[in-house]
Amino acid sequence: MNIKDYMISLGQQAKVAGRELSRADSGKKNAALLAIAEQLASQADYLAKENAKDIQAGKEKGLDPALIDRLELTPARIQAMIDGLQEVAALPDPIGAISNLNYRPSGIQVGQMRVPLGVIGIIYESRPNVTVDAAALCLKSGNACILRGGSESIHSNQAIARCIEQGLTVAGLPVESVQVVATTDREAVGELITLSAYVDVIVPRGGKSLIARISKEATIPVIKHLDGICHVYIDATADIEKAINIAVNAKTHRYGVCNAMETLLVAESIAMQVLPELAKKYKTAGVELRGCLKTCSIMPDCIRAAEEDWATEYLAPILSIKIVADIDEAMMHISEFSSGHTESIITENYTLARRFLREVDSSSVMINASTRFADGFEYGLGAEIGISTDKLHARGPVGLEGLTSLKYIVLGDGHIRQ
Amino acid sequence: MNIKDYMISLGQQAKVAGRELSRADSGKKNAALLAIAEQLASQADYLAKENAKDIQAGKEKGLDPALIDRLELTPARIQAMIDGLQEVAALPDPIGAISNLNYRPSGIQVGQMRVPLGVIGIIYESRPNVTVDAAALCLKSGNACILRGGSESIHSNQAIARCIEQGLTVAGLPVESVQVVATTDREAVGELITLSAYVDVIVPRGGKSLIARISKEATIPVIKHLDGICHVYIDATADIEKAINIAVNAKTHRYGVCNAMETLLVAESIAMQVLPELAKKYKTAGVELRGCLKTCSIMPDCIRAAEEDWATEYLAPILSIKIVADIDEAMMHISEFSSGHTESIITENYTLARRFLREVDSSSVMINASTRFADGFEYGLGAEIGISTDKLHARGPVGLEGLTSLKYIVLGDGHIRQ
Repeated sequence: MNIKDYMISLGQQAKVAGRELSRADSGKKNAALLAIAEQLASQADYLAKENAKDIQAGKEKGLDPALIDRLELTPARIQAMIDGLQEVAALPDPIGAISNLNYRPSGIQVGQMRVPLGVIGIIYESRPNVTVDAAALCLKSGNACILRGGSESIHSNQAIARCIEQGLTVAGLPVESVQVVATTDREAVGELITLSAYVDVIVPRGGKSLIARISKEATIPVIKHLDGICHVYIDATADIEKAINIAVNAKTHRYGVCNAMETLLVAESIAMQVLPELAKKYKTAGVELRGCLKTCSIMPDCIRAAEEDWATEYLAPILSIKIVADIDEAMMHISEFSSGHTESIITENYTLARRFLREVDSSSVMINASTRFADGFEYGLGAEIGISTDKLHARGPVGLEGLTSLKYIVLGDGHIRQ
Repeated sequence: MNIKDYMISLGQQAKVAGRELSRADSGKKNAALLAIAEQLASQADYLAKENAKDIQAGKEKGLDPALIDRLELTPARIQAMIDGLQEVAALPDPIGAISNLNYRPSGIQVGQMRVPLGVIGIIYESRPNVTVDAAALCLKSGNACILRGGSESIHSNQAIARCIEQGLTVAGLPVESVQVVATTDREAVGELITLSAYVDVIVPRGGKSLIARISKEATIPVIKHLDGICHVYIDATADIEKAINIAVNAKTHRYGVCNAMETLLVAESIAMQVLPELAKKYKTAGVELRGCLKTCSIMPDCIRAAEEDWATEYLAPILSIKIVADIDEAMMHISEFSSGHTESIITENYTLARRFLREVDSSSVMINASTRFADGFEYGLGAEIGISTDKLHARGPVGLEGLTSLKYIVLGDGHIRQ
């Protein structure tokens, strides 16, 4: 079978399985999640053996050690997958929930029911744990899924797929509910993102270039997350201690994450009170500073930022810093350079806090909190399939609800339109 | 200025105006809506004069009389636009509403705030009243808009644009909040649907071919509505009187609308009780019947339906009818041929009603009610910008909320991530 026909057959099977899954009750879906967890636990040796093939092949191909590391299924990582399945099983089932069911003047009752999207295509890089995480979220939200992981993890993913299949069988759900693409041919990705007859949404997980390419070529809606150029603005009315703690945490807690601060904006009148202290802390942490002229005059180790620094997601121990006149200049800068991910203001002023909250147009807007909180688990979603910087459909951390939709329901008693 | 530069300038101005509009309080937005209504009322003569130019040009071009009729701004239609503005002013303002604001274990409070999408591009055919309706919904939901009406209505639309501009000025809102494209050049549409730097969503309103073309070519998300192939299924457990009333109403109340029934499905065991009576009623109404073999044996004036009848949105006094074994065959047919708009079951059986509600995957699913109820006003949205048959973002009738998005807000007190 050629790749095109193979992907079409996956799409057709997913659509049929999705219809059955959309009707499955919570108990059955949870039983499947727990059965998959059991399979992973009992087949740990098999997983390790298959994973070793990927590691071996990766080493032979001369893959970057960081990539090899991500590829590895250690016992701790297998346990994390098992824990993840159990956590998703414990989450409330969003499907079927009816809201706003009210009588209308005509006598009909109108409400909305939460329903699955149908079939979700997920494309990700070579982290085998994503196979389980993504499958769990799709299953729980009643969606069939087609998973396409990085080619370097093909043996690991196929082994995981076998565990998932066995778990689904035990629970009596169609095995086509979760299908892991069995070919490493890149053409499969191109087919998947244009299978508009069968796939309802594409979720790419991985680096910026992967996501940009998929968004450009897909003919199916994409829930995407591109840059995270996050800002913290320290207003003149900030509490100094909170400001310093948050500016340090937002940058140094983890560097390679999308919710790390990339640019610090500081009100001119408070700069002398916070920047020298921050200079020390960033120096200790090994953070390179790139600032505007005024910043550099206050922070000795700071080099001059170029214009493109304001538009750069470093994902590294580098920080750009700009001194601004006030909240208006700060919000102007954010509006120009932010990627719409997460921004935080540090202030004790009620009116400025309210203004920032209302006027900043990002998926997460914070007051006196570290941007690092922008995360599905921290927000209480229980799990996260990604963080959307789009405005339509899902915005910000995307949990189970982001994989669902609302349909209208109408209850009548023979009502006709007058 | 060439068309490309002209459209870019509209986009840039809309983006700036949108930022101001997103912060405008409800009072100011309502004042603008009422001021526009006053302008329309006081400039009725001017509107009539400009409209006459379009009518004259349309007649000279030999436009279809139905199109000329739609183009006309009668005093009653001007009054309807004024009423519409007053109704939108009276609707609750969705913007800024905060929901689900709860404390998390970390101590932060996390909630969601409803915010405008930003800039909305609306493309429609030659009905000048859409200019006012669309502007009103966008204004109220805090979105700037760029409106591109059919070229045959250019004078009418520009006259309405002047009234809107004057109303915005009176209320102190930026006049670029609502911009009506001043050229009839078709290139303007192509530019508008690819202005991804400035426009957040495109809403096409009009015929299927217009919408299909725009969806295909747009590089911006489109809130779209294609076919309305709506089904009514009369189950064996139906109340005969309800079944007949609804089957007549869903087909004959209005023909050219997307929520009219196009296919009637009837359980075999009740067919003899409903179809002869329906045959009489449809004959009186002048509805042409196209049925399956069994249907034709019961309904004398019925001709045999071809396979493509099941996939056709007639928008005309034509109805396809199929006799099915039971709810499963009915739902199978719906799943194959429905456009996902609206389906209704007629039944007195509790279990079948619940199954149909849960299992049918359409934007509106009804029990014992006419499909004609699938409408923003009937659902209590107050107004409607269209009916979405997409699954992502807005599904079903799209009111003010469909033109908004939710951003996360986080309130802390110096919280950092541990």
